[in-house]
Amino acid sequence: MKTYLDCLPCFMSQALRAGRMATKDEKKIKELLDSVGCMIKDIPMDNTPPETGDLIYQKVRKITGVEDPYKKIKESNINEALALYPKLKQAIKNSSNRLLTAIRIAIAGNVIDFGVGKEFNIIEDVEKILVQEFAIFDFKEFIYQLEKAKSILYLGDNAGESVFDKILIEEMGKPVTYVVRDVPVINDVTVEDAIRSGLDEVAEIISSGSSAPGTILNLCSDAFLERFNNADMIISKGQGNYEGLSNVDRSVFFLLKAKCYVIANNLNVKENDIVLKVINK
Amino acid sequence: MKTYLDCLPCFMSQALRAGRMATKDEKKIKELLDSVGCMIKDIPMDNTPPETGDLIYQKVRKITGVEDPYKKIKESNINEALALYPKLKQAIKNSSNRLLTAIRIAIAGNVIDFGVGKEFNIIEDVEKILVQEFAIFDFKEFIYQLEKAKSILYLGDNAGESVFDKILIEEMGKPVTYVVRDVPVINDVTVEDAIRSGLDEVAEIISSGSSAPGTILNLCSDAFLERFNNADMIISKGQGNYEGLSNVDRSVFFLLKAKCYVIANNLNVKENDIVLKVINK
Repeated sequence: MKTYLDCLPCFMSQALRAGRMATKDEKKIKELLDSVGCMIKDIPMDNTPPETGDLIYQKVRKITGVEDPYKKIKESNINEALALYPKLKQAIKNSSNRLLTAIRIAIAGNVIDFGVGKEFNIIEDVEKILVQEFAIFDFKEFIYQLEKAKSILYLGDNAGESVFDKILIEEMGKPVTYVVRDVPVINDVTVEDAIRSGLDEVAEIISSGSSAPGTILNLCSDAFLERFNNADMIISKGQGNYEGLSNVDRSVFFLLKAKCYVIANNLNVKENDIVLKVINK
Repeated sequence: MKTYLDCLPCFMSQALRAGRMATKDEKKIKELLDSVGCMIKDIPMDNTPPETGDLIYQKVRKITGVEDPYKKIKESNINEALALYPKLKQAIKNSSNRLLTAIRIAIAGNVIDFGVGKEFNIIEDVEKILVQEFAIFDFKEFIYQLEKAKSILYLGDNAGESVFDKILIEEMGKPVTYVVRDVPVINDVTVEDAIRSGLDEVAEIISSGSSAPGTILNLCSDAFLERFNNADMIISKGQGNYEGLSNVDRSVFFLLKAKCYVIANNLNVKENDIVLKVINK
Protein backbone atom coordinates (compact mmCIF):
# COMPACT_ATOMS: atom_id res chain seq x y z
CA MET A 1 0.00 0.00 0.00
CA LYS A 2 1.34 3.41 -0.94
CA THR A 3 1.51 6.40 1.38
CA TYR A 4 -1.61 8.58 1.32
CA LEU A 5 -1.63 12.30 2.09
CA ASP A 6 -3.55 11.47 5.30
CA CYS A 7 -0.54 9.45 6.47
CA LEU A 8 1.65 12.59 6.68
CA PRO A 9 -0.06 14.29 9.69
CA CYS A 10 -0.38 10.80 11.20
CA PHE A 11 3.42 10.37 11.06
CA MET A 12 3.71 13.51 13.21
CA SER A 13 1.11 12.18 15.67
CA GLN A 14 2.93 8.85 15.88
CA ALA A 15 6.21 10.62 16.57
CA LEU A 16 4.55 12.66 19.33
CA ARG A 17 3.04 9.57 20.97
CA ALA A 18 6.30 7.60 20.79
CA GLY A 19 8.32 10.61 21.98
CA ARG A 20 6.06 11.01 25.00
CA MET A 21 6.30 7.31 25.73
CA ALA A 22 10.12 7.58 25.68
CA THR A 23 10.72 10.80 27.62
CA LYS A 24 9.18 13.63 29.60
CA ASP A 25 11.71 16.09 28.18
CA GLU A 26 9.52 18.35 26.00
CA LYS A 27 12.59 19.83 24.29
CA LYS A 28 13.64 16.41 23.05
CA ILE A 29 10.10 15.69 21.85
CA LYS A 30 10.06 19.05 20.03
CA GLU A 31 13.42 18.15 18.45
CA LEU A 32 11.90 14.84 17.34
CA LEU A 33 8.85 16.57 15.80
CA ASP A 34 11.11 19.15 14.09
CA SER A 35 13.09 16.30 12.62
CA VAL A 36 10.04 14.31 11.46
CA GLY A 37 8.47 17.51 10.05
CA CYS A 38 11.55 18.10 7.91
CA MET A 39 11.46 14.47 6.79
CA ILE A 40 7.99 14.82 5.23
CA LYS A 41 9.36 16.42 2.05
CA ASP A 42 11.67 13.44 1.46
CA ILE A 43 8.97 10.77 1.79
CA PRO A 44 8.27 9.15 -1.59
CA MET A 45 4.50 8.66 -1.73
CA ASP A 46 5.12 5.31 -3.46
CA ASN A 47 6.76 3.98 -0.32
CA THR A 48 4.63 1.94 2.04
CA PRO A 49 3.82 3.70 5.35
CA PRO A 50 5.87 1.29 7.54
CA GLU A 51 9.01 2.23 5.57
CA THR A 52 8.54 5.76 6.84
CA GLY A 53 7.49 4.39 10.23
CA ASP A 54 10.86 2.65 10.37
CA LEU A 55 12.68 5.97 9.87
CA ILE A 56 10.49 7.75 12.43
CA TYR A 57 11.07 5.19 15.18
CA GLN A 58 14.81 5.21 14.39
CA LYS A 59 14.65 8.94 15.10
CA VAL A 60 12.70 8.32 18.31
CA ARG A 61 15.45 5.97 19.50
CA LYS A 62 18.27 8.29 18.42
CA ILE A 63 16.87 11.56 19.79
CA THR A 64 15.45 10.25 23.08
CA GLY A 65 18.15 7.63 23.64
CA VAL A 66 15.45 5.12 24.60
CA GLU A 67 15.67 1.87 22.65
CA ASP A 68 12.27 0.47 23.61
CA PRO A 69 9.79 3.14 24.79
CA TYR A 70 6.92 0.63 24.85
CA LYS A 71 8.77 -2.03 26.87
CA LYS A 72 6.67 -1.77 30.02
CA ILE A 73 3.39 -1.39 28.19
CA LYS A 74 4.20 -4.46 26.08
CA GLU A 75 4.88 -6.52 29.21
CA SER A 76 1.63 -5.33 30.72
CA ASN A 77 -0.37 -6.15 27.57
CA ILE A 78 1.19 -9.63 27.35
CA ASN A 79 0.34 -10.28 31.01
CA GLU A 80 -3.23 -9.10 30.50
CA ALA A 81 -3.57 -11.36 27.46
CA LEU A 82 -2.05 -14.34 29.31
CA ALA A 83 -4.58 -13.82 32.10
CA LEU A 84 -7.35 -14.03 29.49
CA TYR A 85 -5.88 -17.12 27.82
CA PRO A 86 -7.86 -19.76 29.82
CA LYS A 87 -11.16 -17.97 29.14
CA LEU A 88 -10.37 -17.70 25.44
CA LYS A 89 -9.56 -21.40 25.28
CA GLN A 90 -12.87 -22.08 26.99
CA ALA A 91 -14.67 -19.86 24.43
CA ILE A 92 -13.19 -22.03 21.67
CA LYS A 93 -14.24 -25.22 23.46
CA ASN A 94 -17.82 -23.89 23.72
CA SER A 95 -18.00 -22.66 20.12
CA SER A 96 -19.67 -24.42 17.19
CA ASN A 97 -16.75 -23.59 14.86
CA ARG A 98 -13.45 -23.79 16.72
CA LEU A 99 -11.23 -22.59 13.85
CA LEU A 100 -13.42 -19.59 13.08
CA THR A 101 -13.58 -18.62 16.75
CA ALA A 102 -9.79 -18.88 16.95
CA ILE A 103 -9.51 -16.60 13.89
CA ARG A 104 -11.86 -14.09 15.55
CA ILE A 105 -9.77 -14.20 18.73
CA ALA A 106 -6.57 -13.61 16.74
CA ILE A 107 -8.18 -10.59 15.06
CA ALA A 108 -9.49 -9.33 18.42
CA GLY A 109 -5.90 -9.30 19.68
CA ASN A 110 -5.10 -6.85 16.87
CA VAL A 111 -6.74 -4.01 18.86
CA ILE A 112 -3.62 -3.92 21.09
CA ASP A 113 -1.94 -1.39 18.81
CA PHE A 114 -0.18 1.79 19.89
CA GLY A 115 0.65 2.82 16.33
CA VAL A 116 -2.81 4.18 15.52
CA GLY A 117 -3.59 6.17 18.68
CA LYS A 118 -6.95 4.56 19.38
CA GLU A 119 -7.98 3.58 22.87
CA PHE A 120 -8.86 -0.03 23.42
CA ASN A 121 -10.18 -2.33 26.12
CA ILE A 122 -9.04 -5.88 25.44
CA ILE A 123 -11.90 -7.68 27.20
CA GLU A 124 -14.66 -5.52 25.67
CA ASP A 125 -13.08 -5.65 22.21
CA VAL A 126 -12.76 -9.44 22.30
CA GLU A 127 -16.44 -9.77 23.20
CA LYS A 128 -17.44 -7.51 20.29
CA ILE A 129 -15.23 -9.21 17.72
CA LEU A 130 -16.41 -12.68 18.73
CA VAL A 131 -19.82 -11.80 17.25
CA GLN A 132 -18.92 -9.08 14.71
CA GLU A 133 -19.73 -9.65 11.01
CA PHE A 134 -16.66 -9.87 8.75
CA ALA A 135 -16.44 -7.18 6.05
CA ILE A 136 -14.24 -9.51 3.98
CA PHE A 137 -14.49 -13.22 4.74
CA ASP A 138 -12.28 -15.54 2.67
CA PHE A 139 -12.77 -18.34 5.18
CA LYS A 140 -13.37 -21.12 2.64
CA GLU A 141 -10.05 -20.40 0.93
CA PHE A 142 -8.42 -20.27 4.38
CA ILE A 143 -9.68 -23.78 5.18
CA TYR A 144 -8.67 -25.01 1.71
CA GLN A 145 -5.09 -23.75 2.00
CA LEU A 146 -4.80 -24.77 5.63
CA GLU A 147 -5.75 -28.36 4.84
CA LYS A 148 -3.15 -28.56 2.05
CA ALA A 149 -0.34 -26.75 3.91
CA LYS A 150 2.44 -28.76 5.49
CA SER A 151 3.63 -25.69 7.35
CA ILE A 152 2.58 -22.09 7.89
CA LEU A 153 4.48 -18.81 8.05
CA TYR A 154 2.67 -16.55 10.53
CA LEU A 155 3.64 -12.84 10.55
CA GLY A 156 3.08 -11.41 14.04
CA ASP A 157 2.13 -7.81 14.71
CA ASN A 158 1.75 -6.49 18.27
CA ALA A 159 2.99 -7.76 21.64
CA GLY A 160 -0.02 -9.05 23.60
CA GLU A 161 -1.81 -9.86 20.34
CA SER A 162 0.88 -12.56 20.21
CA VAL A 163 -0.94 -14.49 22.98
CA PHE A 164 -4.10 -14.45 20.86
CA ASP A 165 -2.03 -15.66 17.90
CA LYS A 166 -0.91 -18.62 20.00
CA ILE A 167 -4.53 -19.70 20.30
CA LEU A 168 -5.04 -19.69 16.54
CA ILE A 169 -1.74 -21.52 16.03
CA GLU A 170 -2.82 -24.22 18.50
CA GLU A 171 -6.16 -24.55 16.74
CA MET A 172 -4.66 -24.90 13.24
CA GLY A 173 -2.60 -27.91 14.34
CA LYS A 174 0.16 -27.45 11.73
CA PRO A 175 3.86 -26.63 12.11
CA VAL A 176 4.10 -22.85 12.33
CA THR A 177 6.96 -20.38 12.03
CA TYR A 178 6.13 -17.16 13.86
CA VAL A 179 7.84 -14.02 12.51
CA VAL A 180 8.72 -11.09 14.76
CA ARG A 181 10.37 -7.66 14.30
CA ASP A 182 14.15 -7.64 14.51
CA VAL A 183 14.25 -4.83 17.11
CA PRO A 184 11.62 -3.11 19.30
CA VAL A 185 9.45 -0.74 17.24
CA ILE A 186 6.24 0.73 18.68
CA ASN A 187 4.60 -2.12 20.61
CA ASP A 188 5.34 -4.67 17.90
CA VAL A 189 6.25 -8.19 18.93
CA THR A 190 9.96 -9.12 19.23
CA VAL A 191 11.59 -12.50 19.99
CA GLU A 192 11.57 -11.69 23.70
CA ASP A 193 7.86 -10.74 23.63
CA ALA A 194 6.98 -13.85 21.63
CA ILE A 195 8.70 -16.09 24.17
CA ARG A 196 7.01 -14.25 27.03
CA SER A 197 3.71 -14.92 25.22
CA GLY A 198 4.45 -18.66 25.15
CA LEU A 199 4.82 -18.85 21.39
CA ASP A 200 8.03 -20.87 21.70
CA GLU A 201 5.83 -23.72 22.95
CA VAL A 202 3.84 -23.88 19.70
CA ALA A 203 6.01 -22.37 16.94
CA GLU A 204 9.48 -21.75 15.69
CA ILE A 205 10.20 -18.02 16.20
CA ILE A 206 12.26 -16.13 13.61
CA SER A 207 13.01 -12.47 12.93
CA SER A 208 12.03 -10.67 9.75
CA GLY A 209 15.50 -9.12 9.87
CA SER A 210 13.93 -5.67 9.71
CA SER A 211 13.17 -2.92 12.21
CA ALA A 212 10.16 -1.63 10.23
CA PRO A 213 6.73 -1.81 11.93
CA GLY A 214 5.41 -3.92 9.05
CA THR A 215 6.78 -6.53 6.63
CA ILE A 216 8.63 -4.64 3.87
CA LEU A 217 10.24 -7.33 1.75
CA ASN A 218 13.18 -5.27 0.54
CA LEU A 219 14.12 -4.48 4.15
CA CYS A 220 13.91 -8.12 5.31
CA SER A 221 16.79 -10.58 5.64
CA ASP A 222 17.59 -13.16 2.95
CA ALA A 223 16.83 -15.89 5.47
CA PHE A 224 13.33 -14.50 5.99
CA LEU A 225 12.76 -13.99 2.25
CA GLU A 226 13.58 -17.61 1.56
CA ARG A 227 10.96 -18.68 4.09
CA PHE A 228 8.48 -16.15 2.71
CA ASN A 229 8.89 -17.27 -0.90
CA ASN A 230 8.68 -20.97 -0.11
CA ALA A 231 5.94 -20.99 2.54
CA ASP A 232 2.91 -23.20 1.82
CA MET A 233 0.60 -20.68 3.49
CA ILE A 234 1.19 -17.21 4.91
CA ILE A 235 -0.93 -15.56 7.59
CA SER A 236 -0.24 -11.85 8.02
CA LYS A 237 -1.54 -10.06 11.10
CA GLY A 238 -2.42 -6.40 11.37
CA GLN A 239 -2.20 -3.14 9.49
CA GLY A 240 1.58 -2.72 9.25
CA ASN A 241 2.06 -6.10 7.60
CA TYR A 242 -0.88 -5.43 5.26
CA GLU A 243 0.57 -2.07 4.24
CA GLY A 244 3.87 -3.77 3.41
CA LEU A 245 2.48 -6.83 1.63
CA SER A 246 -0.81 -5.79 0.00
CA ASN A 247 0.81 -5.76 -3.46
CA VAL A 248 3.08 -8.84 -3.31
CA ASP A 249 2.65 -11.47 -5.98
CA ARG A 250 2.10 -14.53 -3.83
CA SER A 251 -0.84 -15.74 -1.81
CA VAL A 252 -1.17 -14.16 1.64
CA PHE A 253 -4.03 -14.17 4.16
CA PHE A 254 -4.55 -10.89 6.00
CA LEU A 255 -6.22 -10.98 9.42
CA LEU A 256 -6.82 -7.51 10.83
CA LYS A 257 -9.13 -4.94 12.25
CA ALA A 258 -9.20 -1.78 10.06
CA LYS A 259 -8.33 0.78 12.70
CA CYS A 260 -7.61 3.76 10.47
CA TYR A 261 -9.75 5.10 7.63
CA VAL A 262 -6.87 5.14 5.14
CA ILE A 263 -6.47 1.38 5.43
CA ALA A 264 -10.25 0.89 5.58
CA ASN A 265 -10.57 2.83 2.29
CA ASN A 266 -7.74 0.87 0.72
CA LEU A 267 -9.51 -2.39 1.65
CA ASN A 268 -12.88 -0.94 0.61
CA VAL A 269 -14.32 -1.59 4.06
CA LYS A 270 -15.37 0.70 6.91
CA GLU A 271 -13.27 1.82 9.86
CA ASN A 272 -13.43 -0.77 12.67
CA ASP A 273 -14.46 -3.54 10.28
CA ILE A 274 -12.79 -6.94 10.70
CA VAL A 275 -11.20 -8.65 7.74
CA LEU A 276 -10.07 -12.13 6.70
CA LYS A 277 -8.77 -11.46 3.20
CA VAL A 278 -6.70 -13.52 0.81
CA ILE A 279 -4.73 -12.15 -2.14
CA ASN A 280 -3.53 -14.25 -5.11
CA LYS A 281 -5.45 -17.32 -3.99
CA MET B 1 -2.21 30.59 25.05
CA LYS B 2 1.14 29.10 24.01
CA THR B 3 1.63 26.39 21.42
CA TYR B 4 1.51 22.86 22.85
CA LEU B 5 3.32 19.87 21.34
CA ASP B 6 -0.11 18.48 20.38
CA CYS B 7 -0.64 21.52 18.16
CA LEU B 8 2.20 20.47 15.83
CA PRO B 9 0.56 17.38 14.24
CA CYS B 10 -2.68 19.38 14.22
CA PHE B 11 -1.04 22.09 12.06
CA MET B 12 -0.30 19.37 9.49
CA SER B 13 -3.90 18.12 9.63
CA GLN B 14 -5.21 21.66 9.21
CA ALA B 15 -2.96 22.19 6.18
CA LEU B 16 -4.23 18.93 4.67
CA ARG B 17 -7.89 19.87 5.18
CA ALA B 18 -7.42 23.38 3.80
CA GLY B 19 -5.34 22.09 0.88
CA ARG B 20 -8.05 19.60 -0.03
CA MET B 21 -10.68 22.32 0.24
CA ALA B 22 -8.64 24.46 -2.18
CA THR B 23 -7.57 21.95 -4.83
CA LYS B 24 -7.80 18.38 -6.05
CA ASP B 25 -4.17 18.49 -7.22
CA GLU B 26 -2.48 16.04 -4.84
CA LYS B 27 0.98 17.26 -5.86
CA LYS B 28 0.15 20.77 -4.72
CA ILE B 29 -1.25 19.44 -1.44
CA LYS B 30 1.92 17.39 -0.94
CA GLU B 31 3.98 20.54 -1.63
CA LEU B 32 1.89 22.35 0.98
CA LEU B 33 2.45 19.60 3.58
CA ASP B 34 6.19 19.50 2.77
CA SER B 35 6.31 23.22 3.36
CA VAL B 36 4.33 23.13 6.62
CA GLY B 37 6.42 20.15 7.81
CA CYS B 38 9.61 22.17 7.32
CA MET B 39 8.02 25.11 9.14
CA ILE B 40 7.54 23.11 12.37
CA LYS B 41 11.17 23.59 13.45
CA ASP B 42 10.80 27.37 13.21
CA ILE B 43 7.64 27.62 15.34
CA PRO B 44 8.41 29.26 18.70
CA MET B 45 6.38 27.35 21.27
CA ASP B 46 5.69 30.67 23.02
CA ASN B 47 3.71 31.86 20.02
CA THR B 48 -0.06 31.45 20.13
CA PRO B 49 -1.41 28.78 17.74
CA PRO B 50 -3.27 31.26 15.48
CA GLU B 51 0.04 33.01 14.72
CA THR B 52 1.20 29.76 13.17
CA GLY B 53 -2.26 29.25 11.68
CA ASP B 54 -1.79 32.57 9.90
CA LEU B 55 1.46 31.37 8.30
CA ILE B 56 -0.11 28.03 7.32
CA TYR B 57 -3.12 29.58 5.59
CA GLN B 58 -0.82 32.06 3.84
CA LYS B 59 0.98 29.02 2.42
CA VAL B 60 -2.35 27.43 1.45
CA ARG B 61 -3.21 30.57 -0.55
CA LYS B 62 0.24 30.85 -2.11
CA ILE B 63 0.74 27.21 -3.08
CA THR B 64 -2.80 26.45 -4.28
CA GLY B 65 -3.47 29.92 -5.71
CA VAL B 66 -6.92 29.86 -4.08
CA GLU B 67 -7.61 32.91 -1.93
CA ASP B 68 -10.72 31.60 -0.17
CA PRO B 69 -10.98 27.80 -0.19
CA TYR B 70 -13.94 27.87 2.20
CA LYS B 71 -15.97 30.46 0.24
CA LYS B 72 -18.79 28.13 -0.84
CA ILE B 73 -18.97 26.32 2.46
CA LYS B 74 -19.17 29.65 4.30
CA GLU B 75 -22.07 30.78 2.10
CA SER B 76 -23.83 27.49 2.70
CA ASN B 77 -23.35 27.71 6.48
CA ILE B 78 -24.61 31.30 6.57
CA ASN B 79 -27.69 30.31 4.57
CA GLU B 80 -28.36 27.36 6.86
CA ALA B 81 -28.03 29.63 9.90
CA LEU B 82 -30.29 32.29 8.34
CA ALA B 83 -32.93 29.63 7.73
CA LEU B 84 -32.78 28.76 11.44
CA TYR B 85 -32.94 32.39 12.55
CA PRO B 86 -36.76 32.63 12.97
CA LYS B 87 -36.83 29.44 15.08
CA LEU B 88 -33.97 30.69 17.25
CA LYS B 89 -35.77 34.00 17.80
CA GLN B 90 -38.86 32.01 18.81
CA ALA B 91 -36.75 29.94 21.25
CA ILE B 92 -35.67 33.17 22.91
CA LYS B 93 -39.25 34.42 23.07
CA ASN B 94 -40.31 31.17 24.76
CA SER B 95 -37.41 31.09 27.22
CA SER B 96 -37.46 32.13 30.87
CA ASN B 97 -34.11 33.93 30.56
CA ARG B 98 -33.80 35.62 27.17
CA LEU B 99 -30.19 36.84 27.60
CA LEU B 100 -28.91 33.47 28.78
CA THR B 101 -30.68 31.69 25.93
CA ALA B 102 -29.13 34.16 23.48
CA ILE B 103 -25.68 33.44 24.96
CA ARG B 104 -26.31 29.70 24.58
CA ILE B 105 -27.34 30.23 20.96
CA ALA B 106 -24.20 32.28 20.28
CA ILE B 107 -22.06 29.48 21.75
CA ALA B 108 -24.00 26.86 19.76
CA GLY B 109 -23.03 28.72 16.58
CA ASN B 110 -19.39 28.11 17.51
CA VAL B 111 -19.66 24.48 16.35
CA ILE B 112 -19.50 25.74 12.73
CA ASP B 113 -15.70 25.48 12.71
CA PHE B 114 -13.56 23.92 9.99
CA GLY B 115 -10.31 24.61 11.85
CA VAL B 116 -10.62 21.68 14.26
CA GLY B 117 -11.74 18.89 11.91
CA LYS B 118 -14.81 17.84 13.89
CA GLU B 119 -18.07 17.03 12.20
CA PHE B 120 -21.09 19.02 13.27
CA ASN B 121 -24.82 19.21 12.70
CA ILE B 122 -26.04 22.73 13.41
CA ILE B 123 -29.62 21.84 14.35
CA GLU B 124 -28.65 18.94 16.64
CA ASP B 125 -25.83 20.92 18.24
CA VAL B 126 -28.06 23.91 18.95
CA GLU B 127 -30.60 21.66 20.67
CA LYS B 128 -27.88 20.13 22.86
CA ILE B 129 -26.25 23.40 23.82
CA LEU B 130 -29.59 25.02 24.71
CA VAL B 131 -29.79 22.65 27.70
CA GLN B 132 -26.09 21.85 28.33
CA GLU B 133 -24.52 22.75 31.70
CA PHE B 134 -21.79 25.39 31.52
CA ALA B 135 -18.32 24.24 32.68
CA ILE B 136 -17.42 27.87 33.41
CA PHE B 137 -20.30 30.27 33.97
CA ASP B 138 -19.38 33.90 34.70
CA PHE B 139 -22.93 35.03 33.89
CA LYS B 140 -23.34 37.38 36.84
CA GLU B 141 -20.23 39.35 35.84
CA PHE B 142 -21.51 39.34 32.24
CA ILE B 143 -24.79 40.95 33.34
CA TYR B 144 -22.91 43.41 35.58
CA GLN B 145 -20.58 44.60 32.81
CA LEU B 146 -23.34 44.59 30.21
CA GLU B 147 -25.53 46.87 32.31
CA LYS B 148 -22.66 49.35 32.78
CA ALA B 149 -21.36 49.25 29.20
CA LYS B 150 -22.22 52.05 26.81
CA SER B 151 -20.92 50.00 23.90
CA ILE B 152 -19.53 46.53 23.25
CA LEU B 153 -16.69 45.21 21.11
CA TYR B 154 -17.71 41.77 19.82
CA LEU B 155 -14.96 39.61 18.26
CA GLY B 156 -16.51 37.28 15.67
CA ASP B 157 -15.17 33.84 14.84
CA ASN B 158 -16.76 31.70 12.12
CA ALA B 159 -19.04 32.51 9.18
CA GLY B 160 -22.51 31.11 9.95
CA GLU B 161 -21.83 31.47 13.67
CA SER B 162 -22.13 35.16 12.79
CA VAL B 163 -25.93 34.77 12.37
CA PHE B 164 -26.09 33.34 15.90
CA ASP B 165 -24.01 36.30 17.10
CA LYS B 166 -26.60 38.62 15.59
CA ILE B 167 -29.21 37.13 17.92
CA LEU B 168 -27.09 37.79 21.01
CA ILE B 169 -26.33 41.32 19.79
CA GLU B 170 -30.05 42.01 19.33
CA GLU B 171 -30.77 40.68 22.82
CA MET B 172 -28.09 42.77 24.53
CA GLY B 173 -29.64 45.98 23.20
CA LYS B 174 -26.42 48.03 23.30
CA PRO B 175 -24.36 49.58 20.49
CA VAL B 176 -22.02 46.86 19.21
CA THR B 177 -18.94 46.88 17.02
CA TYR B 178 -18.49 43.48 15.36
CA VAL B 179 -14.89 42.56 14.49
CA VAL B 180 -14.06 40.33 11.53
CA ARG B 181 -10.86 38.92 9.97
CA ASP B 182 -9.16 41.16 7.44
CA VAL B 183 -8.99 38.45 4.74
CA PRO B 184 -10.57 35.01 4.32
CA VAL B 185 -8.86 32.43 6.58
CA ILE B 186 -10.38 28.97 7.17
CA ASN B 187 -14.14 29.59 7.49
CA ASP B 188 -13.67 32.66 9.68
CA VAL B 189 -16.05 35.56 9.25
CA THR B 190 -15.04 38.45 6.96
CA VAL B 191 -16.81 41.76 6.24
CA GLU B 192 -18.62 40.17 3.31
CA ASP B 193 -19.77 37.21 5.44
CA ALA B 194 -20.87 39.51 8.25
CA ILE B 195 -23.02 41.57 5.87
CA ARG B 196 -24.47 38.41 4.35
CA SER B 197 -25.34 37.34 7.92
CA GLY B 198 -27.26 40.61 8.46
CA LEU B 199 -24.84 41.95 11.07
CA ASP B 200 -24.74 45.34 9.34
CA GLU B 201 -28.36 45.80 10.53
CA VAL B 202 -27.39 45.54 14.20
CA ALA B 203 -23.71 46.49 14.50
CA GLU B 204 -20.85 48.47 13.07
CA ILE B 205 -18.54 46.03 11.31
CA ILE B 206 -14.76 46.56 11.45
CA SER B 207 -11.71 44.48 10.54
CA SER B 208 -9.08 43.37 13.06
CA GLY B 209 -6.54 44.32 10.41
CA SER B 210 -5.05 40.82 10.62
CA SER B 211 -5.27 37.65 8.54
CA ALA B 212 -4.69 35.37 11.55
CA PRO B 213 -7.51 32.95 12.48
CA GLY B 214 -7.67 34.47 15.96
CA THR B 215 -7.11 37.88 17.57
CA ILE B 216 -3.34 38.32 17.98
CA LEU B 217 -2.91 41.89 19.22
CA ASN B 218 0.55 42.46 17.73
CA LEU B 219 -0.77 41.51 14.29
CA CYS B 220 -3.84 43.79 14.49
CA SER B 221 -4.18 47.32 13.08
CA ASP B 222 -3.71 50.41 15.23
CA ALA B 223 -7.34 51.35 14.54
CA PHE B 224 -8.49 48.01 15.99
CA LEU B 225 -6.12 48.25 18.97
CA GLU B 226 -7.54 51.63 19.90
CA ARG B 227 -11.04 50.15 19.95
CA PHE B 228 -9.79 47.11 21.87
CA ASN B 229 -8.04 49.15 24.55
CA ASN B 230 -10.93 51.55 25.05
CA ALA B 231 -13.91 49.20 24.81
CA ASP B 232 -16.29 49.15 27.80
CA MET B 233 -16.87 45.43 27.37
CA ILE B 234 -15.33 42.83 25.06
CA ILE B 235 -16.99 39.60 24.00
CA SER B 236 -14.63 37.16 22.29
CA LYS B 237 -16.08 34.20 20.39
CA GLY B 238 -14.40 30.88 19.79
CA GLN B 239 -11.12 29.08 20.21
CA GLY B 240 -8.88 31.16 17.91
CA ASN B 241 -9.73 34.39 19.70
CA TYR B 242 -9.26 32.70 23.10
CA GLU B 243 -5.85 31.36 22.06
CA GLY B 244 -4.80 34.87 21.07
CA LEU B 245 -6.25 36.76 24.04
CA SER B 246 -6.17 34.39 27.02
CA ASN B 247 -3.22 36.27 28.55
CA VAL B 248 -4.12 39.92 27.81
CA ASP B 249 -4.30 42.33 30.74
CA ARG B 250 -7.79 43.70 30.26
CA SER B 251 -11.21 42.26 30.91
CA VAL B 252 -12.55 39.97 28.18
CA PHE B 253 -15.50 37.56 28.10
CA PHE B 254 -14.86 34.32 26.22
CA LEU B 255 -17.84 32.45 24.78
CA LEU B 256 -16.88 29.15 23.23
CA LYS B 257 -17.28 25.43 22.96
CA ALA B 258 -14.00 23.61 23.82
CA LYS B 259 -13.64 21.55 20.66
CA CYS B 260 -10.05 20.35 21.09
CA TYR B 261 -8.48 18.78 24.18
CA VAL B 262 -5.54 21.17 24.21
CA ILE B 263 -7.85 24.14 24.72
CA ALA B 264 -10.05 22.16 27.09
CA ASN B 265 -6.97 21.37 29.21
CA ASN B 266 -5.85 24.98 29.10
CA LEU B 267 -9.28 26.07 30.36
CA ASN B 268 -9.36 23.21 32.87
CA VAL B 269 -12.62 21.90 31.38
CA LYS B 270 -13.49 18.80 29.35
CA GLU B 271 -13.61 18.47 25.57
CA ASN B 272 -17.04 19.58 24.27
CA ASP B 273 -17.76 21.64 27.39
CA ILE B 274 -19.31 25.08 26.91
CA VAL B 275 -17.76 28.11 28.52
CA LEU B 276 -18.72 31.68 29.47
CA LYS B 277 -15.50 32.88 31.08
CA VAL B 278 -14.29 36.32 32.07
CA ILE B 279 -10.66 37.28 32.66
CA ASN B 280 -9.52 40.36 34.65
CA LYS B 281 -13.03 41.18 35.84
